[in-house]
Amino acid sequence: MRKDRKERSDKYYSMLNAAGVVFARLGFYKATISQIAAEAGVADGTIYLYFKNKDDILYQFMNYKSGRFFETMRQAVDGSETADLKLRKLIRCHLREFQNDRDMAVIFQSEVRYRRDVAPHIKDISKVYFDLLTEIIEQGQNDGILKQNLFMGLVKRLVLGGVEGVINTWVAAEGKYDLVSMADPLVDLYLGGIEAR
Amino acid sequence: MRKDRKERSDKYYSMLNAAGVVFARLGFYKATISQIAAEAGVADGTIYLYFKNKDDILYQFMNYKSGRFFETMRQAVDGSETADLKLRKLIRCHLREFQNDRDMAVIFQSEVRYRRDVAPHIKDISKVYFDLLTEIIEQGQNDGILKQNLFMGLVKRLVLGGVEGVINTWVAAEGKYDLVSMADPLVDLYLGGIEAR
Repeated sequence: MRKDRKERSDKYYSMLNAAGVVFARLGFYKATISQIAAEAGVADGTIYLYFKNKDDILYQFMNYKSGRFFETMRQAVDGSETADLKLRKLIRCHLREFQNDRDMAVIFQSEVRYRRDVAPHIKDISKVYFDLLTEIIEQGQNDGILKQNLFMGLVKRLVLGGVEGVINTWVAAEGKYDLVSMADPLVDLYLGGIEAR
Repeated sequence: MRKDRKERSDKYYSMLNAAGVVFARLGFYKATISQIAAEAGVADGTIYLYFKNKDDILYQFMNYKSGRFFETMRQAVDGSETADLKLRKLIRCHLREFQNDRDMAVIFQSEVRYRRDVAPHIKDISKVYFDLLTEIIEQGQNDGILKQNLFMGLVKRLVLGGVEGVINTWVAAEGKYDLVSMADPLVDLYLGGIEAR
């Protein structure tokens, strides 16, 4: 019988973090339950008290990480007044969280985000992000800071696609530069585009 | 002994196309050589005359598709004069090629683009694309149409990230709307941004 949420302990989170380390190092397919158990310093059988199988570890890892991620983003955004500043805070926070947790960045970008078999098992990550973006952009339109005639669905995809492109490049470069320094130039592009005025 | 390039025949391409159908339907991991052979109407052994293994089929499929893709994009761009029009043609062409070949879109977005184990075996797809974008943007800067102080590495990632975000959404929606109609509104965002002027 698996432990339910209220019984979850430090051991549970240490297993999730161990899974993150092993998945990021070896990739999801090559990683084994035994390697995760060894990394967490527990017996293989202990893993099965908390998780159904390797897939379930990945889903719980992602749901745990993304829950924390969105709390942090919400806090970052709520501290600002104008839409353009909220957008800056959101993008800075997004890049900072991924920079500070490279295991999550590697797993999220390479194992999770684009895999059809994984998507249905994790909370709708894009939706939370898109809701936050919609709120910011609508505020900016109401305040007259942002264009009125924006195709919202496309703006949201452009913003998220741009951030992910920047993170993918950073992951591929093995984190050799400061990811957060990309935030403001990226937001300048979202806001002002590339055309000369 | 595997057949070399000059001996490649219609049979070779029919096997590649069959692989595309099977990979797109089942995903790369679940697909088997036997299913690809059955789809192509050849014996399993025939596959091994042309390909080392299932990985090799994926790499050859991708290199074949991306080679054709970049030829088409180059032709689309070369027919235009100004940088903004070239950018429109490029994005329209990109979305049209993926819309016309949904198998490629599914495989490329879900199996290839973000998988660390695949990337080293296929030609550097981003590089060809980025070179084309650099050429267009530099022309636009020389002609005074585009801003002078652009962070080129970021602009390229934003453009590709935006297109991929739009394609991912279309793939996830199972191609239920016209992907090409997203091209012009997307380029408007690249050029003019979201800020009110």
